[in-house]
Amino acid sequence: MRILGIDPGLQRTGFGVIEADGPRLRYVASGTIGTLEAPRGDLPGRLKLIFAGVREVVQAYAPHCASVEIVFVNVNPQSTLLLGQARGAALAALVAGDLPVAEYTALQMKKAVVGQGLAQKAQVQAMVQRLLGLTAPPGKDAADALGLAITHAHAGTSLAALGAAATLSRRQHAQYRKGRAY
Amino acid sequence: MRILGIDPGLQRTGFGVIEADGPRLRYVASGTIGTLEAPRGDLPGRLKLIFAGVREVVQAYAPHCASVEIVFVNVNPQSTLLLGQARGAALAALVAGDLPVAEYTALQMKKAVVGQGLAQKAQVQAMVQRLLGLTAPPGKDAADALGLAITHAHAGTSLAALGAAATLSRRQHAQYRKGRAY
Repeated sequence: MRILGIDPGLQRTGFGVIEADGPRLRYVASGTIGTLEAPRGDLPGRLKLIFAGVREVVQAYAPHCASVEIVFVNVNPQSTLLLGQARGAALAALVAGDLPVAEYTALQMKKAVVGQGLAQKAQVQAMVQRLLGLTAPPGKDAADALGLAITHAHAGTSLAALGAAATLSRRQHAQYRKGRAY
Repeated sequence: MRILGIDPGLQRTGFGVIEADGPRLRYVASGTIGTLEAPRGDLPGRLKLIFAGVREVVQAYAPHCASVEIVFVNVNPQSTLLLGQARGAALAALVAGDLPVAEYTALQMKKAVVGQGLAQKAQVQAMVQRLLGLTAPPGKDAADALGLAITHAHAGTSLAALGAAATLSRRQHAQYRKGRAY
């Protein structure tokens, strides 16, 4: 089972591809899709780079499914709106290729990778390096994306588990709406 | 010049296609892309329907450019995030087809179509019907989408005007960030 993790962002979208064979994990690729080529105010241009970049990764590595971070409301509502649009373009590129998509919060990812939800970025990078036997820690965005792929591998690779993950996401969303912080 | 107007939304995305020959406008098509087929909690599934629907409209009517409503921050931050993702998927479908995209606020559209920015939905529907010589008013979402296409036709059909529209959008965004209501 080849899993593509995606950490969406308007400036940088991290991606990470792993192969999961039961409990064994193997690193395939990771990196960052940047949007600096497009002028800062050109939102359609930036979304185009995100969409094209994610499509390129899907075509290059032919994953069986994707694991995407659930983004949350930012203190700045305008940032929330921009991040939402970036995530929408990234998800469009995944579903346009008929890829099943599981969704996890950063908390779920950190719990699965580091063991606790309040882990720092550097801890995620170090644990991803260790779990995948890399010679150096991956960059922050790539580490988060690889972490999301690992989280989905841990959640189980069957379609039944994919359904369970989706249910979990909905519950988390519902908790969020009720104002419970986590 | 054939213009596609898009009024993005997670439940219903309105579309409207017109042809502009200088000041003369001709109705081509309009309608709504719904996402009720996908279960309520299945965001990737809903974004897939939006993406596929917009792509289908682009392929069916081969517009030269698109005119998309700039969405704003909702009182409910979670709704803002969902609307942002819907708009991101719609924009991805447009830019994936290399369509130039102009962006206008609802205020700009209402000013261009009705003559005043605080116009009601019914006034937009009535004016769109009149401007395009339709036998009945279009539905609300389709009327907004046709209104966006008309707005872009009024703004001028040259690429220079497209650039000016983008600049205007950025200025509007900046005003929004400064907290000016309009």
